[in-house]
Amino acid sequence: MTNAQVTLIQIDNYGPWTVTPEPRREVDLQTLQSRLYADLSQLVGNREGYVFFTRFDNMVAVTNGMDEADHAMIQESVGNRYPVTVSFGVGVAPSPVDALSTATDHLQDAGSAQEADRSEILRGGTLDPDERGDDDVHVAHFDVNDATGKYTDQLNAFDSFIHIEQAYAELMQYLRRAHDGLAFFVGGDNVIAICPDLDGAAYRDAIDHVERTAEVELKVGVGRAATAQPAGMAAKHALEECRENGDRVVLD
Amino acid sequence: MTNAQVTLIQIDNYGPWTVTPEPRREVDLQTLQSRLYADLSQLVGNREGYVFFTRFDNMVAVTNGMDEADHAMIQESVGNRYPVTVSFGVGVAPSPVDALSTATDHLQDAGSAQEADRSEILRGGTLDPDERGDDDVHVAHFDVNDATGKYTDQLNAFDSFIHIEQAYAELMQYLRRAHDGLAFFVGGDNVIAICPDLDGAAYRDAIDHVERTAEVELKVGVGRAATAQPAGMAAKHALEECRENGDRVVLD
Amino acid sequence: MTNAQVTLIQIDNYGPWTVTPEPRREVDLQTLQSRLYADLSQLVGNREGYVFFTRFDNMVAVTNGMDEADHAMIQESVGNRYPVTVSFGVGVAPSPVDALSTATDHLQDAGSAQEADRSEILRGGTLDPDERGDDDVHVAHFDVNDATGKYTDQLNAFDSFIHIEQAYAELMQYLRRAHDGLAFFVGGDNVIAICPDLDGAAYRDAIDHVERTAEVELKVGVGRAATAQPAGMAAKHALEECRENGDRVVLD
Amino acid sequence: MTNAQVTLIQIDNYGPWTVTPEPRREVDLQTLQSRLYADLSQLVGNREGYVFFTRFDNMVAVTNGMDEADHAMIQESVGNRYPVTVSFGVGVAPSPVDALSTATDHLQDAGSAQEADRSEILRGGTLDPDERGDDDVHVAHFDVNDATGKYTDQLNAFDSFIHIEQAYAELMQYLRRAHDGLAFFVGGDNVIAICPDLDGAAYRDAIDHVERTAEVELKVGVGRAATAQPAGMAAKHALEECRENGDRVVLD
Repeated sequence: MTNAQVTLIQIDNYGPWTVTPEPRREVDLQTLQSRLYADLSQLVGNREGYVFFTRFDNMVAVTNGMDEADHAMIQESVGNRYPVTVSFGVGVAPSPVDALSTATDHLQDAGSAQEADRSEILRGGTLDPDERGDDDVHVAHFDVNDATGKYTDQLNAFDSFIHIEQAYAELMQYLRRAHDGLAFFVGGDNVIAICPDLDGAAYRDAIDHVERTAEVELKVGVGRAATAQPAGMAAKHALEECRENGDRVVLD
Repeated sequence: MTNAQVTLIQIDNYGPWTVTPEPRREVDLQTLQSRLYADLSQLVGNREGYVFFTRFDNMVAVTNGMDEADHAMIQESVGNRYPVTVSFGVGVAPSPVDALSTATDHLQDAGSAQEADRSEILRGGTLDPDERGDDDVHVAHFDVNDATGKYTDQLNAFDSFIHIEQAYAELMQYLRRAHDGLAFFVGGDNVIAICPDLDGAAYRDAIDHVERTAEVELKVGVGRAATAQPAGMAAKHALEECRENGDRVVLD
Repeated sequence: MTNAQVTLIQIDNYGPWTVTPEPRREVDLQTLQSRLYADLSQLVGNREGYVFFTRFDNMVAVTNGMDEADHAMIQESVGNRYPVTVSFGVGVAPSPVDALSTATDHLQDAGSAQEADRSEILRGGTLDPDERGDDDVHVAHFDVNDATGKYTDQLNAFDSFIHIEQAYAELMQYLRRAHDGLAFFVGGDNVIAICPDLDGAAYRDAIDHVERTAEVELKVGVGRAATAQPAGMAAKHALEECRENGDRVVLD
Repeated sequence: MTNAQVTLIQIDNYGPWTVTPEPRREVDLQTLQSRLYADLSQLVGNREGYVFFTRFDNMVAVTNGMDEADHAMIQESVGNRYPVTVSFGVGVAPSPVDALSTATDHLQDAGSAQEADRSEILRGGTLDPDERGDDDVHVAHFDVNDATGKYTDQLNAFDSFIHIEQAYAELMQYLRRAHDGLAFFVGGDNVIAICPDLDGAAYRDAIDHVERTAEVELKVGVGRAATAQPAGMAAKHALEECRENGDRVVLD
């Protein structure tokens, strides 16, 4: 059984800020968002966690191994360096979606995402050291079979992107509905999912579903560990094994 | 008639680099990708253009007003500051998709995206000053009606994202097929599209399509200018007008 | 005769901000300062100018070729992306120090650097296009002869630094007093100076002064152009010529 | 007695890289250097250490509490994100200068800083947990009395800088010679020093020396802790106490 600790990171009152007093230049918003994401990736990644950019104003992090003080320090560091602040809701549950739901509830209970006086919330419980196990985090790393040969080198860049985007959309919805997993596009032709404990057949079904509905062939490597970083690295090695052996699913 | 100058930005041989000699830590890849995007946003944005992150290893830029020397300087600056290099293909056409197709052809003709010795390509023609007009770039800025009230403050963060993602997927495919437009998710509940010359009814049809297929209500502001930056800013102001007056489509 | 346009960049009310409500973590201040400098380098550098980090809360830029709108845009971009704002004073004069004095006067007239309500000042005049000449900016690039062999590979890192720091201190004061030039340490064993029109003998005197007082041997390459970027690049090439030929002073 | 763990961070073969095949644009070098420093600040700061920019190509870090694996991870992260690599020498000693000398020796023994095939060195020993004490790191935070009123708001920005620079030069040399301490300018009118165990009179002497030689009045707050971050924060609070009470030296 997995034990996900998921943190919802929300920029406080971001929508209104982007248009106050006048709409701000898009290039600066894009720079702000992507650098904030990069910084959070490093701050969380230095503590063995993963952050996914998701909507950029709402990011999802897998934070097994991080306690409340870690969260508070990251929140403070963002406040010291950006014109915006962030709120954190933290949830813990065997299923990734349940953990995120709890995390979301904490922020929603504290007020609206667009409430000017709701800022730098930090709510929710983190895993006690004695609740943690060696296999709490399962990371599945998917990519597209020969994406470069089939898409990037063949179609125009937007049509390549449409194929990859469709595959991602199907996969994210399938994993969400069938298994309460959370899948995130991470660039290129890569999707990383935080999953409950699934066997090879379940992953094969997911891949088959995408092939049937979006006509895109995926493969997947799966890793497990106490935190996201080593689980994700094991998943990458498993995916390399797929590449070498022609397998579609490899569980570390 | 619009006159799009579109640049395809491709990280050279990126896939193989990410796993050589061993898979690199995901947190570093995410940081690299998002900062490269932020830097390109600034480098292009300082010259009145827009960059969209798309797949991060393949980014699409609207570069009206930038000549070959501008492209070369940006390419050099990336090479001076990153462990990877970038190639640029540039295309010009009345339709945004055609411009991107030409841009893509230039890179594909130069070799595969995963060819170790194809690096820092810069090919394709930019608009001559006397070919340029005041209305060459049409930018449509879409967002979701009351996204915070309906989704962010109600559903868990992943299910909110699924709704926004579905709306985006429908919109990008509709604009691509019906009008040869290029639509990009830019964070939050926002999509920015580079479109040909469309009237209000065409935008209304696009919004209706998304409402019918994804059950998400959008609104859109449209701006026009000689370059992306002022066109995009006009679109933002038009969208603010939607917000104030309850309109679904406002053309600047 | 040179014609320097110098901009003083001052973070508004920075000192008080760093300790309000409590002293902020030094690591975040260092990150903020150095990234703000990096961003200003790019924003000004994209317009052919140079920025020197100086004290980090007060930076000096050579902005020949940039007008008021350029300054305003950079100011806005910083305000959109940082928790602090910046003020700009701009001065123009044949001598670099006089230009900086005028730039400083503009900010001092507007209020104290630590006045909470003095923010985002932009004052002073920029060069009209018809006042500008091909040789307005003279850049001298100094480095230490065989710094690696004599210091970096021999002494402990701090004592190496003390030698370089002493050489820099002597050079900056000599150029300031003798020629109203502005010299800035830019990292490694490099100093870049904005100078009036000096001949080879004057540069030789400066080098001799440093050798006599700090016992450090320098060499220098000098470039001239209408803006800082090409002048600085010419200076680098002249310095390479010193390296190849054993010269101590090369004027491009 | 203090117990300093000092890491010398050296960019590998940086000088030659900056001019190969041709001199690289200064703006890109400045951006690269200052961002690398910012990233190292965060990577080390997330582990309670401090980094000082020093010469930018040679940086000095106080790394008490960090082991070899931490160093290796930071080295890998830099290699994944920059076009240059870094080497680390680590030294441990009661005196800060001795620790840095040992750290420097490790790198010098491995080869020249400008040797193309000497890269990503990681040598030297870190403190064992049972060698560490609660007071191993003493941080002294100096600033200039009323720098804004006396200099920033009165003199031109360069002459203000000359005063602060002179004060720093005197202080760094005095602490080095009299006490084997390491003092670093950190921006504004601030100098942070890593010192052995000194009493209030010793700090007062240092301040008097600077006042006598450079005619600049300093004050100083001193903190102690097992690592740099809390020691530095205690020093900041002690400095605030100086500010409130008019003291020149406060030891936490």
